[in-house]
Amino acid sequence: MTRMKFERLQRDGHARRGQLVMPRGCVQTPAFMPVGTAATVKAMTPEELVEAGAEIILGNTFHLMLRPGTGVIRRHGGLHRFMHWERPLLTDSGGFQVWSLAKLREISERGVTFQSPVDGDAVFLGPERAIEVQHDLDADIVMVFDDCTPYPATREQAEASMELSLRWAARCKDAHGDHPAALFGIVQGGMYTDLRLRSLEELTAMGFDGYALGGLSVGEPKALLYELVEVLAPRLPEERPRYLMGVGTPEDIVFAVGMGIDMFDCVLPTRNARNGWLYTRDSVIKIRNAEFAEDTRPLDPNCECYTCRHYSRAYLRHLHRSNEILGARLNTLHNVHYYLALMDQIRSAIRHGRFTRFAEDFFAKRGVDPRSGSVILGAS
Amino acid sequence: MTRMKFERLQRDGHARRGQLVMPRGCVQTPAFMPVGTAATVKAMTPEELVEAGAEIILGNTFHLMLRPGTGVIRRHGGLHRFMHWERPLLTDSGGFQVWSLAKLREISERGVTFQSPVDGDAVFLGPERAIEVQHDLDADIVMVFDDCTPYPATREQAEASMELSLRWAARCKDAHGDHPAALFGIVQGGMYTDLRLRSLEELTAMGFDGYALGGLSVGEPKALLYELVEVLAPRLPEERPRYLMGVGTPEDIVFAVGMGIDMFDCVLPTRNARNGWLYTRDSVIKIRNAEFAEDTRPLDPNCECYTCRHYSRAYLRHLHRSNEILGARLNTLHNVHYYLALMDQIRSAIRHGRFTRFAEDFFAKRGVDPRSGSVILGAS
Repeated sequence: MTRMKFERLQRDGHARRGQLVMPRGCVQTPAFMPVGTAATVKAMTPEELVEAGAEIILGNTFHLMLRPGTGVIRRHGGLHRFMHWERPLLTDSGGFQVWSLAKLREISERGVTFQSPVDGDAVFLGPERAIEVQHDLDADIVMVFDDCTPYPATREQAEASMELSLRWAARCKDAHGDHPAALFGIVQGGMYTDLRLRSLEELTAMGFDGYALGGLSVGEPKALLYELVEVLAPRLPEERPRYLMGVGTPEDIVFAVGMGIDMFDCVLPTRNARNGWLYTRDSVIKIRNAEFAEDTRPLDPNCECYTCRHYSRAYLRHLHRSNEILGARLNTLHNVHYYLALMDQIRSAIRHGRFTRFAEDFFAKRGVDPRSGSVILGAS
Repeated sequence: MTRMKFERLQRDGHARRGQLVMPRGCVQTPAFMPVGTAATVKAMTPEELVEAGAEIILGNTFHLMLRPGTGVIRRHGGLHRFMHWERPLLTDSGGFQVWSLAKLREISERGVTFQSPVDGDAVFLGPERAIEVQHDLDADIVMVFDDCTPYPATREQAEASMELSLRWAARCKDAHGDHPAALFGIVQGGMYTDLRLRSLEELTAMGFDGYALGGLSVGEPKALLYELVEVLAPRLPEERPRYLMGVGTPEDIVFAVGMGIDMFDCVLPTRNARNGWLYTRDSVIKIRNAEFAEDTRPLDPNCECYTCRHYSRAYLRHLHRSNEILGARLNTLHNVHYYLALMDQIRSAIRHGRFTRFAEDFFAKRGVDPRSGSVILGAS
């Protein structure tokens, strides 16, 4: 039985505020999970993550099983101890990465054999193995192993893939047994709403501790993503946390919270930081631009992060151009702080019953109509 | 007139303990200065440097004048504010980098014209300009612009180069005028002891706030470096700080302190860290080695740095192999902590009149005879 409890605290339209209560800590929702692919949120220490407001981070089964391998992590007493992160951890199952990163894949009913991008070895990952790895990592939230449907896909492809994911989900639930970690199911079905609804129905019948929308952000138009979130998010079980995997920009998040999503993860804040794309209150700054060469102002005068308290745009531009590690650090601190502060503003808006107003202001300031899908910011 | 005061507190053989008193802070000597080439000690924040015990750092005139340029730094109110470092800063003059990094050099009495490694432009640097740049940077300790003698060099080459450096030193002193920063002279003369002594004599006659040994660590055998330090260090003026530029390994530092040197700078701790060479109490660990793959122990169980308090060798190895920024960070924190803790041990040994014993133990533990020059550790 899971030791996770999901408390729903408030609703404001479809938007919800709540908290995940777990032995390693509480997570206020809607929550953003910084991505710690290789047992580190790139360029940050755990203390810096905590200071930025992170309550939960994500680890990648696919990457960690390949390097350094689960044996050494288990010998450290799990991923928390290995990477010195004491708060809750969610691990994905590797399904998405097998699809997006691995070459020479062979998919069968049993699972997937693929070539390791680290050393070229043949590696097998299937439902039981994905659960075993996540147990070895000692994740607080475990994801089922799923087959990620490509985009575009025919209805037949999407249906077959969705059904395979359902059979794998059932095997994951068996393999997970009465392990105390929470286990989340993942809704698949490509871009076909009826397939998605069938996937959701069958997963709900199996019963999971939380439900995720997977197989999105795979190349589809933004409008299609938004349409699916709008239809599906409100239909995910009310009493369980709802997780939109791998999404997204600040705009995506505000939109999806408005449809009832509770949890997000995305590499955008950290990856964009390393590329010098920095979020400010109302826009994005590309710090390498010449216009910042002499700019002695902080990145965002309204931001209270360490970077904005102590450094100028000109200094950040200099570090970025000089390819200095401190540049990646300061940029990452800022972007992660931005995302987590945004979640705080979102929760506060829900608390005060003014989320709709908050979202309208948010999109208006950016000159964006979320329904049109014409989102201007944060492309990867 | 300089606002720097050098207080000699204690002697133990040739070794000395003292402090540099400056408006921006005191520096206990013997001191190690981490190198902040491009307005950042690579991978570290100023707060982390302070926590590691740094009281002064070094900035590079050559790099900073090329990128980002001194104009923008001046507009920030100097290098301290630009990089958020509030304690004393020493800047080198660019003489060494013109020699080691620039292409298409043309040396004349006036100075050096070279091709910028950043953008290929022709750049001029001479005594007056080097002082002007260091004033723009608002350095607390300014170095004279010198001509670095190549190794090997004939006696005639070394003599001509040394004499040019002397004429430039006099012009630097004029250009510096009554600026409140300290100005240090640099002893040159290649590997010729008598030329070095003449350089020293003439610089002393001009009168500087401190004296440096320059043009070393340029490819000469270690035994030759040690021989020159042994002859020259005790002859540098007693009442002024003595600075051995660009040196060196922990062994080099212990040796040179024993000859009366007060100040050091070197990229070894930071560069070695990024390459995965990590200092422990008695040796060097190459963290990428397979032997550490499963090693759950801290890097150095005796070390109290953040890295050793929270992470295992296996984790550090994993980060290094995965080319993670956090790896460079944790390794750098540790190595800089190691160097600064070593200086602390050195000062403590002098304080208690047991430096000779300390140095003997230090070399014995490493199986090194410093007089033979067969130093095994920390090669760059």
